[in-house]
Amino acid sequence: MKLVTYRASVEAAAKLGVLVEDLVVDVQALAAAQGVALPASMLGLIDAGRSGLDALRGCLDRAAGRFPAGTATALANVRLLAPIPRPRKNIFGIGLNYVEHVAESAKSLDTSRELPQQPVVFSKPPTTVIGPGDGIEHNKKMTQQLDWEVELAVIIGTTARRVRREDALGHVFGYSVMIDVSARDNRRAGQWIFSKGQDTYAPFGPCIVTVDEIPDPQGLDLWLTVNGVEKQRSNTRHMLFKVDHLIADISSGITLEPGDIIASGTPEGVGAGRSPQEWMWPGDVVVACVAGIGLLRHPVIDATPE
Amino acid sequence: MKLVTYRASVEAAAKLGVLVEDLVVDVQALAAAQGVALPASMLGLIDAGRSGLDALRGCLDRAAGRFPAGTATALANVRLLAPIPRPRKNIFGIGLNYVEHVAESAKSLDTSRELPQQPVVFSKPPTTVIGPGDGIEHNKKMTQQLDWEVELAVIIGTTARRVRREDALGHVFGYSVMIDVSARDNRRAGQWIFSKGQDTYAPFGPCIVTVDEIPDPQGLDLWLTVNGVEKQRSNTRHMLFKVDHLIADISSGITLEPGDIIASGTPEGVGAGRSPQEWMWPGDVVVACVAGIGLLRHPVIDATPE
Repeated sequence: MKLVTYRASVEAAAKLGVLVEDLVVDVQALAAAQGVALPASMLGLIDAGRSGLDALRGCLDRAAGRFPAGTATALANVRLLAPIPRPRKNIFGIGLNYVEHVAESAKSLDTSRELPQQPVVFSKPPTTVIGPGDGIEHNKKMTQQLDWEVELAVIIGTTARRVRREDALGHVFGYSVMIDVSARDNRRAGQWIFSKGQDTYAPFGPCIVTVDEIPDPQGLDLWLTVNGVEKQRSNTRHMLFKVDHLIADISSGITLEPGDIIASGTPEGVGAGRSPQEWMWPGDVVVACVAGIGLLRHPVIDATPE
Repeated sequence: MKLVTYRASVEAAAKLGVLVEDLVVDVQALAAAQGVALPASMLGLIDAGRSGLDALRGCLDRAAGRFPAGTATALANVRLLAPIPRPRKNIFGIGLNYVEHVAESAKSLDTSRELPQQPVVFSKPPTTVIGPGDGIEHNKKMTQQLDWEVELAVIIGTTARRVRREDALGHVFGYSVMIDVSARDNRRAGQWIFSKGQDTYAPFGPCIVTVDEIPDPQGLDLWLTVNGVEKQRSNTRHMLFKVDHLIADISSGITLEPGDIIASGTPEGVGAGRSPQEWMWPGDVVVACVAGIGLLRHPVIDATPE
């Protein structure tokens, strides 16, 4: 299933939906029409576990593509939000997780040329999250080096503490797309939270594809363009530490919980690694895609204070 | 006011309380006895803003030290929890924020001898938080370098985006104590979240003292002992970046929200900086105090997997 969080109109409350071709099906309304109770939000559905997903699949099966009035809306007529508009903790980010990106980073940033021996973990606060189409804020008093990074986002479904690699993917709820925006000139004594953690620096969506539809997360093409020009193109098979490894590794010390998000790192082609270097500026449009999941399109907007 | 989160018995729900001498006053029960509505949790009270605090003060003033049956319990008979048992995002940690600690860190860790030009920000997930008396987990398969750091914790009361230093303290709800536990041998490519972000690595409490009782956060003694031996003793006046500076700085890029926590850094005397180096082991007891706020006492417990 492709799950979304959306508003049916500007004033409407955020709802949980399922994409069925070009329709957004209102999960709660469909369930109510069938006399079933289902959660009202993505985090509620994740918390409900397998039984929630099974109940939702049952509703869709019974509907068999015929949705009662008021339970489905054309995708073109709704506003998609980030699938989890407000994560319950910081997003886990992974640095230097594609081989060629390690090399380009060592040339232009202060990172090592050597491949990391263990995942490089950092975090992005919930306030970084924006939904499809929202503006990425550029504050020119803070940065002249705003950079892009397309990433596969992993959504955790069940609590994972000290899990083995072979069990790790069993804790995944689904996958999404995230742009890990960075202000390269805002790094501090090596810590990345300030440079990667500013407001609007985590465009996220457009949907979460449940794990049953992506049994192997390591074969997905991903790419990114700025103003229509391709800047990144790779495949998740080139990850240095695969998704199962990331989950096993983080959970060895930090318990992962339902709804947690791991942004699994970016391939080569970031602005900092280009010659000459390139950065994002107000008026630019960045598009990021992971094949089989979906596409994010975001304008960069001027948010410089007076 | 000294505000706490507590359980009146093992099975009881967590409640919001006020310390009045050696009593814990049940905020909701006292308010109900007076026909007033008040929030049930610390985050609820923080969200209620000035009007919530004013209403609570009104209740205490009307009670005038005489609490109806069922509205107060001896402190000795309750179990204190962390004041905010589950933060809504990662805790903001500040590294290298006391001058002598910068020097000791440069000797023993991989940090610079130079004073940082800007605050060094990292984060600790909500899963690090434990309440007074809870065990700090030691996993000897992960670390042989578990270290202590006593810190003043700053609790944000109102949304702060791009605030000036002179306005920053107006966004503070109150102050508390946190031990920033670190596994020094778990640092990775400079990023600190894994070494400082493991489960149980943020003992927090015992209360939040509201800002009206601590108009100047830069004159507080703080100290830490391990097994009764003093390891750290300093005063918050020695912070390199003061609390107002930290809030102004973080909020320049990252919006701070009600309930956010900033662990403001530790003075000299950590285990890594001693000669020979010292670490915490199962059976040790660490006690940390910020004068005027309170004292945390935590055993280190063996949590090594089979």
